[in-house]
Amino acid sequence: MSVTAPQGFRAAGVRAGIRNQSLGATASRPDVALVVNDGPQQVAAGVFTRNQVKAAPVLWSQQVLREQNLRAVVLNAGGANACTGPDGFGDTHRTAEKVADVLGCGAIEVGVCSTGLIGERLPIERLLKGVEAAAVELADGEDAGTRAATAVLTTDTVDKQAAVGRHGWTVGGFAKGAGMMAPSLATMLVVLTTDAIVTPEQADGALRAATAMTFDRLDIDGSTSTNDTVLLLASGASGVEAEADAFTEVLTEVCADLARGLQADAEGVTKRIAVTVTGARDDRDALVAARTIARDSLVKTALFGSDPNWGRIAAAVGASEATVEPETLSVTVNGVLLCEAAAAVGDRHKADLSGPEIAVEVDLGLGGGLATVLTTDLSHAYVDENSAYSS
Amino acid sequence: MSVTAPQGFRAAGVRAGIRNQSLGATASRPDVALVVNDGPQQVAAGVFTRNQVKAAPVLWSQQVLREQNLRAVVLNAGGANACTGPDGFGDTHRTAEKVADVLGCGAIEVGVCSTGLIGERLPIERLLKGVEAAAVELADGEDAGTRAATAVLTTDTVDKQAAVGRHGWTVGGFAKGAGMMAPSLATMLVVLTTDAIVTPEQADGALRAATAMTFDRLDIDGSTSTNDTVLLLASGASGVEAEADAFTEVLTEVCADLARGLQADAEGVTKRIAVTVTGARDDRDALVAARTIARDSLVKTALFGSDPNWGRIAAAVGASEATVEPETLSVTVNGVLLCEAAAAVGDRHKADLSGPEIAVEVDLGLGGGLATVLTTDLSHAYVDENSAYSS
Repeated sequence: MSVTAPQGFRAAGVRAGIRNQSLGATASRPDVALVVNDGPQQVAAGVFTRNQVKAAPVLWSQQVLREQNLRAVVLNAGGANACTGPDGFGDTHRTAEKVADVLGCGAIEVGVCSTGLIGERLPIERLLKGVEAAAVELADGEDAGTRAATAVLTTDTVDKQAAVGRHGWTVGGFAKGAGMMAPSLATMLVVLTTDAIVTPEQADGALRAATAMTFDRLDIDGSTSTNDTVLLLASGASGVEAEADAFTEVLTEVCADLARGLQADAEGVTKRIAVTVTGARDDRDALVAARTIARDSLVKTALFGSDPNWGRIAAAVGASEATVEPETLSVTVNGVLLCEAAAAVGDRHKADLSGPEIAVEVDLGLGGGLATVLTTDLSHAYVDENSAYSS
Repeated sequence: MSVTAPQGFRAAGVRAGIRNQSLGATASRPDVALVVNDGPQQVAAGVFTRNQVKAAPVLWSQQVLREQNLRAVVLNAGGANACTGPDGFGDTHRTAEKVADVLGCGAIEVGVCSTGLIGERLPIERLLKGVEAAAVELADGEDAGTRAATAVLTTDTVDKQAAVGRHGWTVGGFAKGAGMMAPSLATMLVVLTTDAIVTPEQADGALRAATAMTFDRLDIDGSTSTNDTVLLLASGASGVEAEADAFTEVLTEVCADLARGLQADAEGVTKRIAVTVTGARDDRDALVAARTIARDSLVKTALFGSDPNWGRIAAAVGASEATVEPETLSVTVNGVLLCEAAAAVGDRHKADLSGPEIAVEVDLGLGGGLATVLTTDLSHAYVDENSAYSS
């Protein structure tokens, strides 16, 4: 159930004292994670935030990924190393160099991920000592994977891990945060591993396809982090060549599992909401409409209040850039049809939203386009977590 | 200070019992308003929500505005008459017919505006009786204008009115809600009046220019109402022909005054935030960047917490569709430069955000583009107001 589920991987999570001491309890958590690919292959692929303001570790990892080859990934919580200028980039470079030293590889074979507050330099000496300690702790087995998965948590309350074994090979992974290259609540970092034999092109194609259908369709608050990163490392240690479609399918399954974990643990969540749009002119229109509904503060507060206020859903979809015709628009909430031809049908109170899962289904009645976006409600807890003074 | 400030106008606000009785105190408020243009001219112009799902009164008013001539506007709170199908449109039509009856004009000379819950039919008999009562109460003078301005309030806590007299003519108006054709918190309805002599083309051009720079740049939560409407009625009663630029200028002044009133009374507001973007490639880019910052939940919760968390501002602008270069990006909050070349400068704690006004200034350093968007924070009170069960 982790990055160490596939053969050929070791991991570690240690406490380096990077987290802000003023945070109390969370400061005593581990904050440096290391994932190492012992091969025989070291194929890698990555997808990154689309934010134009990119953190130093993103700029670094994008650069080293050009070789499509990674020996290791080092991650830290306690600081995003974003908006830190050339000195911040130097810190990332030094971190990769330190990992290269302890593993006996080149810095260009080391991916780096960071998460935490934007705009502050990392305590680099502590981080480098943490890398040394992590190298000593490296181990295979589930516990080691869990220690790594735990070391990168920030406002997360539980670690998010997944693994699927099939066809003679396995895909594993962990994730922190919630959101993705387009949307992001806090930074999302994901490390995926596999012991399948895959080509660099296959790894890249499968990762793009899998993230597009999973993390890219998780939208907590529409914000986009400077640090979002998803890395895939393939060791080939199973000795089995993966068939392209099967690999994409299993990778998508693991990503979907992790995405649901991120949704369930999102900041302030009280409702897990799936917004499905059908009958759109095309899939792109469906995605645009679903995302607009998922981001709408009035929809999200209504659902927090367990209110089947379908009028706000109709208003949100009408305000989207998707083509909408009121005459063919219907809205169903938790299986109860509430709106047909953009007008009320039945008794809205029959839609029971008191539970933690809400399914919003909008049929545009215009074509075959279809998409689902996962989101959460807008609650008091969300406001609490995000209005707490940052330092 | 109202729609009755210019010569040639009468107004009324009465209680017709349309508001949901379960709302308690607010149910006893007046809920039908009537504004009548006694001429000699009856020139009119309107701008409407861009939502593809338009309320019946919007569809009606867009239709009658083709004649660029209005004798009266009737408005109701207590129901949006949106997503109510052909029957709902029939209700709007009957309302206009009733106004036409009591005033002795054609229904095609009557604009209609509604605000309240989406998806429920109006209690039409009560509304028609309200129109009769309003016709009896019609009067000139400030009190009558205030009664009309008060009758359309929903979650508003105060009436919003403005007037400017200059060049021998006057522009007056009232507004309810917050937001506009693109963005909207709750429905925004605005009625503007003037006794200047203007042509229909001049009225239309001035109204579009004025709203684009004011209500269109007020963004409370990025949502877009099905009902947003701004109507301008010109009586020509001053006998003075308005010069085009002067008219646009005064109209913009009145709209800006009303927009500030909407911002100050937005749902759950504790901070009035002005986001100004300078140095953009062009004005459009500046507006896109400013609007993205103004809509960002992480920025809005940080400012609710009086936290000068400029990293979230930098992340939001980087995620916008405007062109952003980190190397030339700076962020100033309440006059204190916090970020230069996308990196921290100075002591963030010097930016004191404890007061109710916050100025966020972002310089993209790329060109001469400039825009300001007004918004508010994302507070517990906002969640409270919008998660209360709708019925």
